Amino acid sequence: MRTCTLDTLATPEHHDTARAALAAHYPQVRRFSEQLCAPLEIEDYGLQTVVEASPPKWHLAHVSWFYETFLLRPFVPNYQVFHPRFEYLFNSYYEQTGSGFWPRHERGLLARPTVAEVYAYRQHIDAAMLRLIADCPAADWPTVALRLRIGLNHEQQHQELLITDIKRHFAHNPLRPAYRAELPTVPLTAPAPLRWHELAGGLIEVGATDEAFYYDNEVPRHRVFVAPFKLAERPITNGEFLAFIQDGGYQNTGLWLSDGWAIVKQQGWRAPLYWEARDGEWWQMTLAGMRPLNPAEPVCHVSYYEADAYATWAGKRLPTEFEWEYAALNQPLAGHFVEDDWLHPRPAPEGEGLKQLFGDVWEWTGSAYLPYPGYRAAPGALGEYNGKFMCNQLVLRGGSCATARDHIRPTYRNFFYPHERWQFMGFRLAEVAA
Amino acid sequence: MRTCTLDTLATPEHHDTARAALAAHYPQVRRFSEQLCAPLEIEDYGLQTVVEASPPKWHLAHVSWFYETFLLRPFVPNYQVFHPRFEYLFNSYYEQTGSGFWPRHERGLLARPTVAEVYAYRQHIDAAMLRLIADCPAADWPTVALRLRIGLNHEQQHQELLITDIKRHFAHNPLRPAYRAELPTVPLTAPAPLRWHELAGGLIEVGATDEAFYYDNEVPRHRVFVAPFKLAERPITNGEFLAFIQDGGYQNTGLWLSDGWAIVKQQGWRAPLYWEARDGEWWQMTLAGMRPLNPAEPVCHVSYYEADAYATWAGKRLPTEFEWEYAALNQPLAGHFVEDDWLHPRPAPEGEGLKQLFGDVWEWTGSAYLPYPGYRAAPGALGEYNGKFMCNQLVLRGGSCATARDHIRPTYRNFFYPHERWQFMGFRLAEVAA
Amino acid sequence: MRTCTLDTLATPEHHDTARAALAAHYPQVRRFSEQLCAPLEIEDYGLQTVVEASPPKWHLAHVSWFYETFLLRPFVPNYQVFHPRFEYLFNSYYEQTGSGFWPRHERGLLARPTVAEVYAYRQHIDAAMLRLIADCPAADWPTVALRLRIGLNHEQQHQELLITDIKRHFAHNPLRPAYRAELPTVPLTAPAPLRWHELAGGLIEVGATDEAFYYDNEVPRHRVFVAPFKLAERPITNGEFLAFIQDGGYQNTGLWLSDGWAIVKQQGWRAPLYWEARDGEWWQMTLAGMRPLNPAEPVCHVSYYEADAYATWAGKRLPTEFEWEYAALNQPLAGHFVEDDWLHPRPAPEGEGLKQLFGDVWEWTGSAYLPYPGYRAAPGALGEYNGKFMCNQLVLRGGSCATARDHIRPTYRNFFYPHERWQFMGFRLAEVAA
Amino acid sequence: MRTCTLDTLATPEHHDTARAALAAHYPQVRRFSEQLCAPLEIEDYGLQTVVEASPPKWHLAHVSWFYETFLLRPFVPNYQVFHPRFEYLFNSYYEQTGSGFWPRHERGLLARPTVAEVYAYRQHIDAAMLRLIADCPAADWPTVALRLRIGLNHEQQHQELLITDIKRHFAHNPLRPAYRAELPTVPLTAPAPLRWHELAGGLIEVGATDEAFYYDNEVPRHRVFVAPFKLAERPITNGEFLAFIQDGGYQNTGLWLSDGWAIVKQQGWRAPLYWEARDGEWWQMTLAGMRPLNPAEPVCHVSYYEADAYATWAGKRLPTEFEWEYAALNQPLAGHFVEDDWLHPRPAPEGEGLKQLFGDVWEWTGSAYLPYPGYRAAPGALGEYNGKFMCNQLVLRGGSCATARDHIRPTYRNFFYPHERWQFMGFRLAEVAA
Repeated sequence: MRTCTLDTLATPEHHDTARAALAAHYPQVRRFSEQLCAPLEIEDYGLQTVVEASPPKWHLAHVSWFYETFLLRPFVPNYQVFHPRFEYLFNSYYEQTGSGFWPRHERGLLARPTVAEVYAYRQHIDAAMLRLIADCPAADWPTVALRLRIGLNHEQQHQELLITDIKRHFAHNPLRPAYRAELPTVPLTAPAPLRWHELAGGLIEVGATDEAFYYDNEVPRHRVFVAPFKLAERPITNGEFLAFIQDGGYQNTGLWLSDGWAIVKQQGWRAPLYWEARDGEWWQMTLAGMRPLNPAEPVCHVSYYEADAYATWAGKRLPTEFEWEYAALNQPLAGHFVEDDWLHPRPAPEGEGLKQLFGDVWEWTGSAYLPYPGYRAAPGALGEYNGKFMCNQLVLRGGSCATARDHIRPTYRNFFYPHERWQFMGFRLAEVAA
Repeated sequence: MRTCTLDTLATPEHHDTARAALAAHYPQVRRFSEQLCAPLEIEDYGLQTVVEASPPKWHLAHVSWFYETFLLRPFVPNYQVFHPRFEYLFNSYYEQTGSGFWPRHERGLLARPTVAEVYAYRQHIDAAMLRLIADCPAADWPTVALRLRIGLNHEQQHQELLITDIKRHFAHNPLRPAYRAELPTVPLTAPAPLRWHELAGGLIEVGATDEAFYYDNEVPRHRVFVAPFKLAERPITNGEFLAFIQDGGYQNTGLWLSDGWAIVKQQGWRAPLYWEARDGEWWQMTLAGMRPLNPAEPVCHVSYYEADAYATWAGKRLPTEFEWEYAALNQPLAGHFVEDDWLHPRPAPEGEGLKQLFGDVWEWTGSAYLPYPGYRAAPGALGEYNGKFMCNQLVLRGGSCATARDHIRPTYRNFFYPHERWQFMGFRLAEVAA
Repeated sequence: MRTCTLDTLATPEHHDTARAALAAHYPQVRRFSEQLCAPLEIEDYGLQTVVEASPPKWHLAHVSWFYETFLLRPFVPNYQVFHPRFEYLFNSYYEQTGSGFWPRHERGLLARPTVAEVYAYRQHIDAAMLRLIADCPAADWPTVALRLRIGLNHEQQHQELLITDIKRHFAHNPLRPAYRAELPTVPLTAPAPLRWHELAGGLIEVGATDEAFYYDNEVPRHRVFVAPFKLAERPITNGEFLAFIQDGGYQNTGLWLSDGWAIVKQQGWRAPLYWEARDGEWWQMTLAGMRPLNPAEPVCHVSYYEADAYATWAGKRLPTEFEWEYAALNQPLAGHFVEDDWLHPRPAPEGEGLKQLFGDVWEWTGSAYLPYPGYRAAPGALGEYNGKFMCNQLVLRGGSCATARDHIRPTYRNFFYPHERWQFMGFRLAEVAA
Repeated sequence: MRTCTLDTLATPEHHDTARAALAAHYPQVRRFSEQLCAPLEIEDYGLQTVVEASPPKWHLAHVSWFYETFLLRPFVPNYQVFHPRFEYLFNSYYEQTGSGFWPRHERGLLARPTVAEVYAYRQHIDAAMLRLIADCPAADWPTVALRLRIGLNHEQQHQELLITDIKRHFAHNPLRPAYRAELPTVPLTAPAPLRWHELAGGLIEVGATDEAFYYDNEVPRHRVFVAPFKLAERPITNGEFLAFIQDGGYQNTGLWLSDGWAIVKQQGWRAPLYWEARDGEWWQMTLAGMRPLNPAEPVCHVSYYEADAYATWAGKRLPTEFEWEYAALNQPLAGHFVEDDWLHPRPAPEGEGLKQLFGDVWEWTGSAYLPYPGYRAAPGALGEYNGKFMCNQLVLRGGSCATARDHIRPTYRNFFYPHERWQFMGFRLAEVAA
């Protein structure tokens, strides 16, 4: 069995033609981060309303810090840093860089550097990066190319966080401001009834192959046994979740995991995040401001605990990450991604068959986020990227309306703590085959 | 596939001869709880030094409440409760009994009922239980017998907790009192070098069969694929763990899971729980008081985080719960259990082959505590026994020096949060087969 | 102006005949502490239900530690301590003894030493103390005598705390056990209307004179100006306080100090501590268990915030500590003290004139607990007795039904934080003279 | 004795000529608030680094809310509010307005309204206020005039808070940005030795007279007795405080009040706020950025606990607020105020006599902030201005380098909690006369 780490996962063979492609791809990714921030006021850039959602300014700087730390400092001779304290201010959690990092819960307390200075920092990084891509010696290129691809994927992840964090911050404001009031909406419709798709399972292989980029947590590819099962053709909708609420789901302790019930009581949860009852009608906060709840849309911004309680109430369960991957293997990336610019999950399309496995909402699985057999994190700070989080979190699959389409694949493993709700998180049911 | 719940797991066929056996077994189990408390002073019975470790008095009462709630109230006509408030005071966490429960973190604040009153409560329960076992109508017997077996296993679990909680409370006292100063000790020895045992794996079946009693979390029995692997012949010892400490293990962030590193820093962990450095020598608190650390004993009272960090440092990993179960299937229950009355893990015996899979120390596995496919909790309060905890915890296997030998089996799944250390918890390494 | 410290306040002249008297007084005081604990079960001795209320066992040991630390260790050659760790375990808060102290909030976590061991400790101290009183060289006697008198007054203070802490602990138990069920009760009566007593004031002297024992916080005696004022003849009663409650006093933010309102909301205060509404009737927890509220009794177990809010509601104010002292100067100690063995405040007697200034309930004054001009704490640990608390607390005057009559005097200053309620605390109104 | 409330303290006689003066004064005060914010970046306006220091944007809006709430809404017929939610967002703590208020600790989480919108709000208020001043009916004028004067003094208080809060926020940033780098500095000098000024005391009158504006907490004027005392001619300096530090002041528990010692240990205090040791030299954060510590300047940003510990160390004490007022009665307002635009305390001038009683640093007194005898808060929300804070705080006197000179007077009472340090707080010693 092949062990796999961040430093070995990409071999030169896959990438020898990549220099030009990466030189073109780099500015595209960089530009999109700034484009996402265009609707913001200066005042919005510094907001951190909860510890897990960072300020937009911090995201813009941190993704730049990533290139500086893992590419410019090690591979550019006599590289001049933009500011000597930025390695401390914009490191997120990498313990092994030696710089330490500004406390995560205080990211919103840094009015300086200003927004303009952060944009200047980005320009400094971009200029240096383009020179590095152009001029880097061939001997360094394989490592540089791999790290660059990680850096670009890393920035894409932060683009998704930019969107979800902005939504979180704006929803905290009692004025409920819109990020982009002009975002389109769909007419309110009732969802089609839920249909089930049966899959045979068997002794299958899961995990990434070497054909394309992947993160180290997607390998080693290995065999697992999947028993026959049925999978819902689409995610659970707002309308279906409303029936759970109306049936007293949030008051019925027997439906909940113990840790989930504790948080329901402590936080007074009565509905998904961003839902608000106003005069007997349900509304939800969106990136376009407050909108009436659409029963046909996938339910979103629910925790693992809520997904699990719903499944228990419905007499079903969540799929495992391997059931999901097996079902998704030959499915098209047909859902809505960030490029579609809805920034909100849309109702499932009509017709038969599995739908929306990709895009719209991340889907909680019933699988704990653990290392694949034989996994070993890379040595050094870059090895902290994924490996050190393999405890206490659950796997989500498929991407969302805030994910880049070219960022996602069937083997992609996202992970969050079971109480977290601020991502575009929904779920799909499974059950044992008859 | 057969779904399985607490109410259906025991069928009459397995138990038709059980009435006499249970009538004999019941007083044995009950007597042992009281025997464990015999060395205590009255003052010790009420102690709760940390929220997760309950007072001995509470354990004695709670196990009695279990019989009262699930057997005497439902199956004894006109049953007279001992005290109307005890259903509230001695319920642990069952939300669906309707009584509510006294807050867990305040169990140590109840001087009343007194110890004498709790023993009187036990006598009241015992008299009623023996009558029920003798007189219960045949139609009720299957359910009564099943619940009684659960109740007895439940009391055995609390006997183990009595021991570990008393150790925890006594260790908190700066006088470090001995629970039983006369407990035997073994000469200090050096451990034999670690050897490895290779296993072939394959598509195997895991989970309980109907041949003996099991908890609902051990079923449905189902197939999993296990790749070839190597398993250490014995758990890691104090001496080996000391080498990790001396190599700076607790200071090396690169070895730790992120959540584990946070707790190492926050709590100032520098060694396993109960280890103390005095004048350059390591001592450990035991149920016999402070004793010099024996390098040959299995390391004990370590969290999952410490077990995982050690494995990373050693270039190995923890086994999955299925690897462990597969390896343990035909092994004898050869380790030390509570009946051996050492109340402390002993060094592994000499010789070749897998050793100490059972007894001495619970072994952390690398598996999250999740439901087996098709698992469904029983309806009602009894269904809360295991199911609602299937999130955020890890599986441990094999039992410890504080477990009853007749309580354990290869399919038995214990579970704790990854930061917990006060049980007799150790670990064994695994690695990919060559 | 004379400065005054604990070490100089008692001059030999006042005490040259005191050796025999103190030798007789010492065992009386010591015996009373144990007498107060006689109704306790062993289980009750270790209780600490809130941080500010210590376990009875701790009180019994701590007062003994005081003699050991300030008398036996310094004045008995070759004194043998009872246990080397007790100086650490039973020091309360004296930073300058060098021993450190066991954390205050964990006093309830020490099952050992046992109750029997603590009584043995007391006997050890008593034997040594009686020898010291008998044999102490004349040159040491003045200091020994002063410290002994402080030690006895200190034990009297802890006797009051024993009573109030036992009440607090028992009230926390949902069984509401009685400390002494046989304590007498008075028939429910209506209070007589409140009458006012007018006082002329002027430039007066306040603080202790050298005629009797006093604490260092009662001196230097000094002049203050008191304007003419009126003082209520008796404390506010339960019946009067009930009218405040029924008028929405606990809901009317305009009546409350800001810090008080914050705690009302945070703690959900709706009535004095120990009041409980059952089926529309008010009951209160007493040392004899639950009893119906007597409207004629002084209201008790109210915080400064509640006393102040009531006064605002009534259009009055609390007296200053100097107004109180001026009014109390020539009043008899006519209220109920611990020697009267009611352990509960009684209704004011009939008739004209100031009543109940002493005994029954401590009376909150509107004065902050600050040093008198020229006050200086004694050097060393004994100087921590009173001085270091002269911030953030309010002065209470007059003693309560749990205070020893020979412990109290007009100049006596008690002090608590404004939110504290577990002492026998009530209040009396004042207003500007017409 | 005359009782006094906010609604009665200003009688028409004092103010019948004030309409033109107030019409002129209003824009001056308003303009200065905006002038103080001119050096800020947009990013700085929203900062709240600690709960007690509000964002500049919030200050700008809140002072406008004050006019809107207490003047425009009640006195302008058909007044149109700028935004219906601002009464909720920018109320500070007035419980009786009925609007509720946004949580104080979340003031920094409101990116919207933007800075531009808040300035527009100010313009809206200003236009309405100037119309009200011009057109208000004569019958309303006395009340309007009084409330307007309160409103202007209120804005002056928030101007001081703007300065101190900006300093607090900038000091939290690891880049230590300067608010105004061009602020002047004085050469480092050694302070002149401390001299003492003797005062006779006696039965004096304290509190405000009706000759000028005052807050309700400065009355009723009343008699107090002040014994002869000596007062230091100037505040304690950085150099003197450094000697306390070097003598182990922060490590010597015997010098500290109990609550102070607790915070010293918990917070790790080792010096005044804003002091930093760099390479063995002491620096301090100022509004001009980091500067070397000037030993001749008054020590600043110390808590009451530190002031009291220093006094104990020095064998002196803090003056009472009445001693201070008595000493200050005929002194000129000769120190440095905000109009002098140093924004930092300056060394005391040379020469004999009392110096710097006014300006430079607020001086902690040893007096608790309590109501004067006969004080009664005004009914309604405006009565919450001062009265509800008369508990748990200490009085400071004299104003600082961030106070407006025309805001201060000998009877002015400022008040803060004893642990607070972020104002320009220093202290002056007193002692008993020989």
